[in-house]
Amino acid sequence: MKNTFGTSVAVTLFGESHGESIGVVIDGLAPGIPVDHEAITHMLTLRRPNGRISTPRRESDSYRIVSGVVENTTTGTPITILISNENVQSGDYSQMKTVARPSHADYTAECKYHGYQDSRGGGHFSGRLTAALVAAGAICRSALERKGIFIGTHVKRCAGISDRSFGDLGEDIRALGEKTFAVLDEAQGERMREEILRAASEGDSVGGVLETAIIGMPAGVGEPWFDTVEGMLSHMLFSIPAVKGVEFGAGFAIADLTGSEANDPMRVENGKVITETNHSGGINGGITNGMPILFRTAIKPTPTIFQPQNTVDFKEMTNAVTEPKGRHDPAIVHRARVVQDAAAAIVLCDALAMRFGTDFLK
Amino acid sequence: MKNTFGTSVAVTLFGESHGESIGVVIDGLAPGIPVDHEAITHMLTLRRPNGRISTPRRESDSYRIVSGVVENTTTGTPITILISNENVQSGDYSQMKTVARPSHADYTAECKYHGYQDSRGGGHFSGRLTAALVAAGAICRSALERKGIFIGTHVKRCAGISDRSFGDLGEDIRALGEKTFAVLDEAQGERMREEILRAASEGDSVGGVLETAIIGMPAGVGEPWFDTVEGMLSHMLFSIPAVKGVEFGAGFAIADLTGSEANDPMRVENGKVITETNHSGGINGGITNGMPILFRTAIKPTPTIFQPQNTVDFKEMTNAVTEPKGRHDPAIVHRARVVQDAAAAIVLCDALAMRFGTDFLK
Amino acid sequence: MKNTFGTSVAVTLFGESHGESIGVVIDGLAPGIPVDHEAITHMLTLRRPNGRISTPRRESDSYRIVSGVVENTTTGTPITILISNENVQSGDYSQMKTVARPSHADYTAECKYHGYQDSRGGGHFSGRLTAALVAAGAICRSALERKGIFIGTHVKRCAGISDRSFGDLGEDIRALGEKTFAVLDEAQGERMREEILRAASEGDSVGGVLETAIIGMPAGVGEPWFDTVEGMLSHMLFSIPAVKGVEFGAGFAIADLTGSEANDPMRVENGKVITETNHSGGINGGITNGMPILFRTAIKPTPTIFQPQNTVDFKEMTNAVTEPKGRHDPAIVHRARVVQDAAAAIVLCDALAMRFGTDFLK
Amino acid sequence: MKNTFGTSVAVTLFGESHGESIGVVIDGLAPGIPVDHEAITHMLTLRRPNGRISTPRRESDSYRIVSGVVENTTTGTPITILISNENVQSGDYSQMKTVARPSHADYTAECKYHGYQDSRGGGHFSGRLTAALVAAGAICRSALERKGIFIGTHVKRCAGISDRSFGDLGEDIRALGEKTFAVLDEAQGERMREEILRAASEGDSVGGVLETAIIGMPAGVGEPWFDTVEGMLSHMLFSIPAVKGVEFGAGFAIADLTGSEANDPMRVENGKVITETNHSGGINGGITNGMPILFRTAIKPTPTIFQPQNTVDFKEMTNAVTEPKGRHDPAIVHRARVVQDAAAAIVLCDALAMRFGTDFLK
Repeated sequence: MKNTFGTSVAVTLFGESHGESIGVVIDGLAPGIPVDHEAITHMLTLRRPNGRISTPRRESDSYRIVSGVVENTTTGTPITILISNENVQSGDYSQMKTVARPSHADYTAECKYHGYQDSRGGGHFSGRLTAALVAAGAICRSALERKGIFIGTHVKRCAGISDRSFGDLGEDIRALGEKTFAVLDEAQGERMREEILRAASEGDSVGGVLETAIIGMPAGVGEPWFDTVEGMLSHMLFSIPAVKGVEFGAGFAIADLTGSEANDPMRVENGKVITETNHSGGINGGITNGMPILFRTAIKPTPTIFQPQNTVDFKEMTNAVTEPKGRHDPAIVHRARVVQDAAAAIVLCDALAMRFGTDFLK
Repeated sequence: MKNTFGTSVAVTLFGESHGESIGVVIDGLAPGIPVDHEAITHMLTLRRPNGRISTPRRESDSYRIVSGVVENTTTGTPITILISNENVQSGDYSQMKTVARPSHADYTAECKYHGYQDSRGGGHFSGRLTAALVAAGAICRSALERKGIFIGTHVKRCAGISDRSFGDLGEDIRALGEKTFAVLDEAQGERMREEILRAASEGDSVGGVLETAIIGMPAGVGEPWFDTVEGMLSHMLFSIPAVKGVEFGAGFAIADLTGSEANDPMRVENGKVITETNHSGGINGGITNGMPILFRTAIKPTPTIFQPQNTVDFKEMTNAVTEPKGRHDPAIVHRARVVQDAAAAIVLCDALAMRFGTDFLK
Repeated sequence: MKNTFGTSVAVTLFGESHGESIGVVIDGLAPGIPVDHEAITHMLTLRRPNGRISTPRRESDSYRIVSGVVENTTTGTPITILISNENVQSGDYSQMKTVARPSHADYTAECKYHGYQDSRGGGHFSGRLTAALVAAGAICRSALERKGIFIGTHVKRCAGISDRSFGDLGEDIRALGEKTFAVLDEAQGERMREEILRAASEGDSVGGVLETAIIGMPAGVGEPWFDTVEGMLSHMLFSIPAVKGVEFGAGFAIADLTGSEANDPMRVENGKVITETNHSGGINGGITNGMPILFRTAIKPTPTIFQPQNTVDFKEMTNAVTEPKGRHDPAIVHRARVVQDAAAAIVLCDALAMRFGTDFLK
Repeated sequence: MKNTFGTSVAVTLFGESHGESIGVVIDGLAPGIPVDHEAITHMLTLRRPNGRISTPRRESDSYRIVSGVVENTTTGTPITILISNENVQSGDYSQMKTVARPSHADYTAECKYHGYQDSRGGGHFSGRLTAALVAAGAICRSALERKGIFIGTHVKRCAGISDRSFGDLGEDIRALGEKTFAVLDEAQGERMREEILRAASEGDSVGGVLETAIIGMPAGVGEPWFDTVEGMLSHMLFSIPAVKGVEFGAGFAIADLTGSEANDPMRVENGKVITETNHSGGINGGITNGMPILFRTAIKPTPTIFQPQNTVDFKEMTNAVTEPKGRHDPAIVHRARVVQDAAAAIVLCDALAMRFGTDFLK
């Protein structure tokens, strides 16, 4: 379905980096959900570049909800959010860049769109579109919180520095919600930022790992085949530009464990089934087991670097050298984390509506 | 869509481990594709338990195509493949097991199906269903090969032992096709098998990592948002029981690289755009770039082990101890690799038909 | 989605008239629904040719459920039903008929499948596949009846003879369930059968109109745009071979009414909102209003007639004359009515599961 | 999929009658299609109320394309069109009308949205949203015309007066494109308008029948089951407010024909297979046969009439009388015809892209 994702609750994403507006339609959210503008603005702010570790480009990301919400409450019909692109120096489109930036989508866009793509600023491929996804996700996240479902993501690793592991999830998720640079251990966060600045000073960039925890999901959501919770989440998560891997629970580390180490022993506690460890990441056989959902994504370093790189001019079909100028992020992992929260929130709303009906989140 | 996956080419999977039959419907494959029974049987044989490192249960996996194929050629209408479950000791269904096996789907099945699930042998969650997926994938794979697209998977890692990396992909893929235990370095494969036997002797099990390479895919397939090639493949791959992670190209290792290390320099070679490295795994911005597609999955150790484990009786809601008896695999990573080939083949047929029309694979 | 239809509850249809088996997968039906074999057999019997007004070909339509049902109860996983094709005189496939039968799908099948279609007996286009749809619909219908939702279809018109209109719907639906030739007025039914026999004696065929009533549907099901109840039902109904029109409530007759005549006045009765007339057919703005759903389909006369007809040989691209031999129905309207019941039942189960969750029909 | 329709080419519709904007996202249209603003404006103008036979409310319907189009050419990424709601006297939302207008969606909206719906002016159910559908359809229609596919709709019947039948389709379609009140016989059109005015003078309204012809569609498009061309078109057409019936070719009249009358004899003409009659409406077995596609819809009379009507207050659950005031159309059939053109154009673009790939319309 290309730019639409979801079944009962679906998002449709549109826009280009240097077009008039980007935006999103969220369809299928239950009626009667309060739309918390503070929460939307907060998540958009966390996504925005800020401080010395981000691009100096400033976007106000002021959004407008043009349908589906009346008196700050969802009506149950499609919610459309528009975010204008301000101060774009759109340049002359006729001078389309035909020198591909390595590890960007310039060349693949050409293969798919045959020269008609809007190549200014990455066009439809731009990370800028995640602002719209974040706005949609903010509404979904608020809806989930009313049902006792909470989502939090931290920068688990950046530039070779690791954050501490999740501890008390309720507490950690709450704390992450307030942080601009989302780490659980501030000292490690400081070291990460130093590394980002060092890379920036060399015209280079760094990547990282994002880890998400979700608490409060009821057991019994998801399907054994195809629409596993892992499958639906990963399908969405790989749309976040720069994600090159997704793992659940113990993830790739589970490959080196034995069954006796990897299995999660079970126990009844307070009339509820729990597992003593959570290597499964809250999902067995594709279906939630009531334990926290845990997953991580690999975020590649920003492909735009200020160093000469070998590449091609795909129109002339000749070799070329590119050395970008302009404003770019030496790291996006800390900005991507709210996108990850948002993406997860949208998928969970859909899975819950499929399981329990369209009024469930009301 | 639950047990159906795909848009233009779709598979529908059905059956239970101890039911009458398992099977699959492949819908949307172009007419005129030769159905190579040798290739199907070969892939089914590779999936089957064999040798001392697998369960002693023997399944003949003889399949029957009951629709969509005439004179060994696809008609263009749904292809239905049935595989009978032979010699199942079905036992008495009324004595449904209510003691959950840790890290199996027993408890989540209960949460979703409220006691009506067929719990014999894992029921619909059983890895046995992958036999049907493999049969479907074998037909898709043959269709791709006629278009010059080849898929190969090796056991990249098992029980802590690593296989060598891919070298000449054409050659490696060809060689893997013949191997029962698919490694590129036979000496490492022998060490893996030793470790599997050692785990088995302790009533334990081991996991691993599977790595897949796909050559020949045209550039320009996939979508920038949501139906990225990574997203579609991962959605399917997480349906393979035991997969807990999916990564493309450099995967999680890319998190520790800088942009100057991670970016793939580009070059024109023989009138074709290529990249000098392939950290992107053949995909940029969700769209194929014409380079080989590379991905890895994390396979957890078989959860069935012959040791006592703490668990629950979810009907009585009491703590319990389980110690399985019967026949099980101390490792499934080597069997899962043909499932991974099959899963990839199905997704690629769908992506190609969406891009180039329903006659493309004819 | 081609041969799969539905979102939360979906059917996948497969098979060919002269292949080994036809069949259907029903996916997404709630667990715990009793599977009433008598009801399935009854509906299959009603679809089967019978008496002098149908083809002398006899099909036993014995079906086998090979997955998704344990102890005559749905498990919640895909239910697969197989119906063998018995006594097919398959002939030699290599002698594919290339002389198109007028108003059949022979020529369009060629345009789509390029000569690879199974042309024996209509292949995948055969009305025979509706037997599988009926079997699936029988299970769905039983599930609906447990919720107080009842479906009945009568031959509203055949060969120019009209049945009386629906009266007491509960009573009429009950009575129709037992009838082989489903009319409300037996005298009119007798006249219809006479006309069918007269057409048969001339080597000709007749068509008709089927009218369906559904009682007990809760209000608030369906969507304002695209997934209107009318849209979903009609999408499915046009799959029934021979259907050339679908109308709801007053249907095409509403075109000649004024607003004051067409509008349905509303009233509160026993604490429930009802309408005094039902020109809307139980649906306003795409959504059920709690009144009976009413719709009609136009069934064209069987295109196979025993008279010479001008046509083409699409392989030779020459004009030709066809004069079929063999066994065919002079009318199918009376057989199609259980297919219509089945089709409606499947769509309603899907719409209800989307609205109220996957456990709703449990 | 609720407010999204289509598979390879999909539209997402959003907005409310009295909200800030209505709009549409068209996703999946090939890159490189010229966007003809004159054609869009022309179709929007035809949909707009005009003359004495329509509501005196004036909407300028000025639209803005905010994504997916660069230099008046499609980029291949989602095209978003916004149409502002001007001069809406939004009133006070807190005074939601709870007295249902008969045969409107007021009551069903309540059943679905539980009081949260935007009830001003019909909200999301408003016919106003068809302006966005028309804008999207205008782009799709232009794309089809470049491929030689032309669509035209006339008012076949209105207030009991019939237009003449289609004659030379190419000529008729061309002529209809220019007409505000689309009839083939102007004298009959004049009589229709008189009847509309007479109904208006009595505070009443009238309905009608719309007939659409499509020429130039290649043979071999559509599917035998479920995604029949009839099924896909009807699914979309029933979203047009007021449509209560859809019929193809001879439609309901075919029910009274014999097979020998109804069958379309075939012939080779200029190396192409044609049928001598077209009772099939260009579709056999769900698949286009290369002949013109013909269908008709039943349009109910505008439910808003200026006469007292019995109804209910669904909040108080009491009987009530409603007598609307304001501005409304005594007929919408002549305005709905461009909506029908647009709806058909969108569905055909999707069917063609599914069949021949995403570049087909380029």
